[in-house]
Amino acid sequence: MAANQPLGEFLDDLASERSTPGGGGAAAISGAMGAALVSMVCNLTIGKPKYVEVEAELKEVLAKSETLRGELTAAIADDVKAFDAVMGAYGLPKGETDEAKAARTAKIQAALKEATDVPLDCAKLCAEVVKLSSVAADKGNVNVVSDAGVAVQSAYAGLMSAALNVRVNAASIKDRDFADGRLATLESLLSEAGAETTRVYDVVKAKLG
Amino acid sequence: MAANQPLGEFLDDLASERSTPGGGGAAAISGAMGAALVSMVCNLTIGKPKYVEVEAELKEVLAKSETLRGELTAAIADDVKAFDAVMGAYGLPKGETDEAKAARTAKIQAALKEATDVPLDCAKLCAEVVKLSSVAADKGNVNVVSDAGVAVQSAYAGLMSAALNVRVNAASIKDRDFADGRLATLESLLSEAGAETTRVYDVVKAKLG
Repeated sequence: MAANQPLGEFLDDLASERSTPGGGGAAAISGAMGAALVSMVCNLTIGKPKYVEVEAELKEVLAKSETLRGELTAAIADDVKAFDAVMGAYGLPKGETDEAKAARTAKIQAALKEATDVPLDCAKLCAEVVKLSSVAADKGNVNVVSDAGVAVQSAYAGLMSAALNVRVNAASIKDRDFADGRLATLESLLSEAGAETTRVYDVVKAKLG
Repeated sequence: MAANQPLGEFLDDLASERSTPGGGGAAAISGAMGAALVSMVCNLTIGKPKYVEVEAELKEVLAKSETLRGELTAAIADDVKAFDAVMGAYGLPKGETDEAKAARTAKIQAALKEATDVPLDCAKLCAEVVKLSSVAADKGNVNVVSDAGVAVQSAYAGLMSAALNVRVNAASIKDRDFADGRLATLESLLSEAGAETTRVYDVVKAKLG
């Protein structure tokens, strides 16, 4: 899926019986929407006299959120590629000799590792968006604070979604040190971002009155 | 925003300093992605011999999820329209006479009521998607159970996001019976869907092993 595909067509593909795009693509889009909404809050704050004291900080946030938006948009295609590689490896001839069987297994395992790291990268990017949403909610233009609240919800949904794809692939990896290390990183991201999302959402609700 | 706009262009618009599209559009897209993923799980379950016992039920779920997907896709444009109507009403000349002032106030209040009901409708649709995700996670093809988990996360993020737009507009409505009624409906949706989302996500995690 490319960023120039119409949204309605992407949703048609998502709903179809094809395996990709699937949850991994939806996770990346949720994260990208979160990043875009952080950028919107920054763009509607920077240049306003009332917010001159936070302008420099929000310019930095904007630069980061725009980078993250680009990375998360690119992650939609990465997810399809990683999934297709796993399916391709499982689809290889099973082989007659032990050597051929071992070669197929090694290819499957390598593809599963990549298909664990791709959603983990997406999860990390979403966790970064959660942090930026926090600054946007605390310091951005209060007239668009609800958009900062939507940003944090979208980014957190992206993280929770990507987490499922990390888990599903990590479960089939034989190298348990690799898998357990990735799962530990994931748990740490989820724990920190979960607490921050709750805090930001409450801040936004309080500012809405 | 129409469904035929490229996704990347929509994200550009979301990030821009224009007020629409904003969080309301992102909420509707989250809900639509959730509905699409429910449909995907149904499409990958229906027709499989192993799932013949749940086939009739999942066909009903699929019909509902596809209807909801259409409604949520349409809700993206409804949000822009409702927001523009509020801005248009606030932008009317303030008027010299009491009568002219009262007429402007009435138009603002009517637009705010509409701008409360539009995201409340989106919230209701997202809550329906949460319920369908629940069936998809419990009874759908276990090979795509992670997609049911992403569906519930996306739909719940859509609901939590739409909720902020209900609150921001309800806060400015003078007819407190109207506003309080809408807020009570919203709280009920949030409470039920919040509990269900947690349950579904845990079911999915358990099935992933």
